[in-house]
Amino acid sequence: MKMILIIFFIFSLLSLSNASVLDFCVADYTAPNGPAGYSCKKPAKVTVDDFVYTGLGNPGNTSNIIKASVLPAFDAQYPGVNGLGISVARLDLAKGGVIPLHTHPGASELLVVVQGTICAGFVSSDNSVYLKTLKKGDIMVFPQGLLHFQINGGGTPALAFVSFGSANPGLQILDFALFKSNFPTELITATTFLDAAQVKKLKGVLGGSG
Amino acid sequence: MKMILIIFFIFSLLSLSNASVLDFCVADYTAPNGPAGYSCKKPAKVTVDDFVYTGLGNPGNTSNIIKASVLPAFDAQYPGVNGLGISVARLDLAKGGVIPLHTHPGASELLVVVQGTICAGFVSSDNSVYLKTLKKGDIMVFPQGLLHFQINGGGTPALAFVSFGSANPGLQILDFALFKSNFPTELITATTFLDAAQVKKLKGVLGGSG
Amino acid sequence: MKMILIIFFIFSLLSLSNASVLDFCVADYTAPNGPAGYSCKKPAKVTVDDFVYTGLGNPGNTSNIIKASVLPAFDAQYPGVNGLGISVARLDLAKGGVIPLHTHPGASELLVVVQGTICAGFVSSDNSVYLKTLKKGDIMVFPQGLLHFQINGGGTPALAFVSFGSANPGLQILDFALFKSNFPTELITATTFLDAAQVKKLKGVLGGSG
Amino acid sequence: MKMILIIFFIFSLLSLSNASVLDFCVADYTAPNGPAGYSCKKPAKVTVDDFVYTGLGNPGNTSNIIKASVLPAFDAQYPGVNGLGISVARLDLAKGGVIPLHTHPGASELLVVVQGTICAGFVSSDNSVYLKTLKKGDIMVFPQGLLHFQINGGGTPALAFVSFGSANPGLQILDFALFKSNFPTELITATTFLDAAQVKKLKGVLGGSG
Amino acid sequence: MKMILIIFFIFSLLSLSNASVLDFCVADYTAPNGPAGYSCKKPAKVTVDDFVYTGLGNPGNTSNIIKASVLPAFDAQYPGVNGLGISVARLDLAKGGVIPLHTHPGASELLVVVQGTICAGFVSSDNSVYLKTLKKGDIMVFPQGLLHFQINGGGTPALAFVSFGSANPGLQILDFALFKSNFPTELITATTFLDAAQVKKLKGVLGGSG
Amino acid sequence: MKMILIIFFIFSLLSLSNASVLDFCVADYTAPNGPAGYSCKKPAKVTVDDFVYTGLGNPGNTSNIIKASVLPAFDAQYPGVNGLGISVARLDLAKGGVIPLHTHPGASELLVVVQGTICAGFVSSDNSVYLKTLKKGDIMVFPQGLLHFQINGGGTPALAFVSFGSANPGLQILDFALFKSNFPTELITATTFLDAAQVKKLKGVLGGSG
Repeated sequence: MKMILIIFFIFSLLSLSNASVLDFCVADYTAPNGPAGYSCKKPAKVTVDDFVYTGLGNPGNTSNIIKASVLPAFDAQYPGVNGLGISVARLDLAKGGVIPLHTHPGASELLVVVQGTICAGFVSSDNSVYLKTLKKGDIMVFPQGLLHFQINGGGTPALAFVSFGSANPGLQILDFALFKSNFPTELITATTFLDAAQVKKLKGVLGGSG
Repeated sequence: MKMILIIFFIFSLLSLSNASVLDFCVADYTAPNGPAGYSCKKPAKVTVDDFVYTGLGNPGNTSNIIKASVLPAFDAQYPGVNGLGISVARLDLAKGGVIPLHTHPGASELLVVVQGTICAGFVSSDNSVYLKTLKKGDIMVFPQGLLHFQINGGGTPALAFVSFGSANPGLQILDFALFKSNFPTELITATTFLDAAQVKKLKGVLGGSG
Repeated sequence: MKMILIIFFIFSLLSLSNASVLDFCVADYTAPNGPAGYSCKKPAKVTVDDFVYTGLGNPGNTSNIIKASVLPAFDAQYPGVNGLGISVARLDLAKGGVIPLHTHPGASELLVVVQGTICAGFVSSDNSVYLKTLKKGDIMVFPQGLLHFQINGGGTPALAFVSFGSANPGLQILDFALFKSNFPTELITATTFLDAAQVKKLKGVLGGSG
Repeated sequence: MKMILIIFFIFSLLSLSNASVLDFCVADYTAPNGPAGYSCKKPAKVTVDDFVYTGLGNPGNTSNIIKASVLPAFDAQYPGVNGLGISVARLDLAKGGVIPLHTHPGASELLVVVQGTICAGFVSSDNSVYLKTLKKGDIMVFPQGLLHFQINGGGTPALAFVSFGSANPGLQILDFALFKSNFPTELITATTFLDAAQVKKLKGVLGGSG
Repeated sequence: MKMILIIFFIFSLLSLSNASVLDFCVADYTAPNGPAGYSCKKPAKVTVDDFVYTGLGNPGNTSNIIKASVLPAFDAQYPGVNGLGISVARLDLAKGGVIPLHTHPGASELLVVVQGTICAGFVSSDNSVYLKTLKKGDIMVFPQGLLHFQINGGGTPALAFVSFGSANPGLQILDFALFKSNFPTELITATTFLDAAQVKKLKGVLGGSG
Repeated sequence: MKMILIIFFIFSLLSLSNASVLDFCVADYTAPNGPAGYSCKKPAKVTVDDFVYTGLGNPGNTSNIIKASVLPAFDAQYPGVNGLGISVARLDLAKGGVIPLHTHPGASELLVVVQGTICAGFVSSDNSVYLKTLKKGDIMVFPQGLLHFQINGGGTPALAFVSFGSANPGLQILDFALFKSNFPTELITATTFLDAAQVKKLKGVLGGSG
């Protein structure tokens, strides 16, 4: 008798979840994307590996002049975060390393120092500068869209993870926008008041034209 | 003379609405979906029947061990609500019927008792339990993502409609997640402190494995 | 020994939820409100009755010329829905009853017919009219901000519950906006092309001035 | 030596922006659209002209009975605003011109008077009427979804630009919804209390049926 | 008899709008503000003048070295837009005038040229530069958070109105953030690769310290 | 002459940023909070320390029966994240440590393993179980509102930081909701199908009543 009830039970509960609800929307990079993100992979093709990202497990290459590396895991790299309003990046800063001034147009950033010492800062709309030297375990938040930077503030390599309240926070590096683009020098000088010689020098370094 | 003005009038007003504005986005289940919902059906193919759902007109089958039934009209079933931030479900509870503990990850729920008596409750993050016996015409709201349940609290069948502030509220039934899945028993016991025997018993009932 | 572990257990888990997380924000009508809704009542003062609304349990008064009644349970009436993105109203339509043309500026509406027959409709931006006669248990959705109405379509009283994907959907009744306000008649005629006599007649009925 | 550093520099910074971030989503009208807007054009095909709209440069035709014209630049006309939460329209009002009562279901409107004098107004949910005669350079905001209008309030042509906090604000013109549709006359009279003769007269003018 | 029905009618419709719905939330600058904006003024104190802003009616002062002026009408200046997701600013550019490179962290911008010729541009995350010379009546959109500028591109004064899909779009002017702040020169040079002499020169001009 | 221009310049640019724009809204815990978060501290009182959180710098206490600790830095603890859509927590798991099954009603979670090995998993609405053993540097995302857990999967202590796409993600621990509350045992058994003996045993451990 109990067994019969149990069998009933199985079938009755089954009927409760016949809605093909959408808990997530793993990115299908082969279909169109829209303002809210990428199209969703068919649920049957989703595996746990879509939700796991292993590309931040090793340090980025810091053998370069900024002695630093940024490895993003945004929706364009990490299909599992598509539509979930969260993403992450790994910052490696060798001794003397610098993440140059940049903004994220679409989200605030939260930095966790995992190793070493990082001097970080941002500038607000009223031109206040918020600076702090952060040690291992310290957290700092950079409000959406404001210019900010990170510098290795100690004598040893530093490691941080930064997360964002968007799967697609964007990233605009000031020096790139100005000097690694074809932004005409005369427009740069007119709109930044930098000297033309300074602009040309940095364009030379970064490969900008115009 | 007046007639000429009227003819002018017709053509002039016509020009005011040549924007193919998008008042709604009836789901096209054959095109890709994304984080914001399904693709939109071409407006020319939309009819009033896309906005009307008749599948909740009859009671669900409560001849089962929980003596209850949930019939959802989410965007996966009801194309007209796609993108509109609203959906609905019908709850039928026979005498003694129970809607087991569950959550809706994506929306708050509002319950309207249409017939009978329902004892409903939810638990908040600080482990407060909010319980109420509701009679015909009473309303109760269950905040987003919190565990809640409904039980027939009277001697007669009960009927309720629940609506959600999302076209895709989601539905996670606790017992299903634990015992009708392949969630390994040793992980369940480790993460819930339930006894293995209890887990295996309910997995036996619900068909879970692992 | 086990008992000691258990005591440890109690204290250790306690530490897991010392975050005073905000699952809900029951309206405190005595504090300022803002664009997102009312201020939150202190959690310690919240009871289950904040989440329950009993004001829709009885039919509204339909002994009037429209033979109908609308009873809202929006955040202004129902503190528990504040900030939760959902609200509800009760429609009673006596035989011949009519809910006049209106819009909800802030949310889509979902109607569930609980008793009787209701003829409902809405007009889209391209001036298509979507009409349907709904019977008990039928659902219809009205996209945000569009003109719509409900009429008792049968020979018996009708009852419906309408829910909204906002705690504050708004409600603008066309006839009130035009004829129960101090909207100057000459501006109404200029912007609607109605005859002044028609406007004055309805202002007389509804008490408008201007 | 410096040159070597510079070369390092180029390559190192290059690695910083290998994320194909999505700053914008220019509409691809050939792919499916969804609740959040149109699909995105491939970035490589986007040009500055997608972000520029020149269709509002000349006055609309006001040689009609309302002596007015509305030219929209919503996402359906202007691919660059897709997903960006902003759009615009141009209003031309000849002497005596009128933009009839209408609503935008999906966004608030902000009007800037560029030339002439405009009398504008809206009606709120509590049937208050907010009226103002605006001169060149004045701004007025119309909250989302409420009935509003604009009339040329002076003896010379007027020009205004209106912007919206959505790429797809929608537009429902009251007279069109009622009298240029196939909304049955008996339903209009029942839900607006207008006289049938008035309804038929305006349907005659505007070409409505039913 | 008809009169009696009419009296009924008045009272019955009155009951339809007893919900104190919130169509708008005019800023009360004396009460606390929150993430969604300012607190709301009591509806009874709201007048049409809260929705009208006249501060953009006259040209800003362009007798300065940039030969330009920006007059904002954001929620901090214009109480009526609070919570409505829209705001506006007036740009005056004398002959040779420049609005320096800047970003709006919180919204996309839509520019309408009302008079003269404006050369405008923005830089995207992939360092593409989108430039266009716009004439009277042309529209250009600048996606959220990206560096952009406007320059008078002709021989006569230019006037534009820019609107934003937020009541509080923010405004970060690059030169101010760097050179009119107390951002330490050594951190600027480290994070921008500008020469210290250049930084000091512009700090001297703009009054920055550090 | 140049100096005069420079002085002009200073004053002219000053006028560009007289808008008291709101880049952030640091929590003022003494003022009312609302659905969007806490009221904002006066900008003049904000310092860099509002944006920095040092409370996650040291391991939490894992000398307890779950051998684990969760330290949250949500808006209730960390005023700088208020309104910014991001927050973080620190997980310490001693050898054998377990973060029991729980949900976050208001946000998705992204986990970064900083030290050791963590076995993590979540269950979706269709009762699929997604499990992965993560090593140092691995990332895993848990979609909003779904049951998930973390277990130390190795022989050494593990450390992870989890971030959330909300400043107030919420936290509901399954065992607490059921067994550390006053949820009546008969309602728990009725809505979970657990045996009463099991419920009472765990209530005894966790201190629940009812």
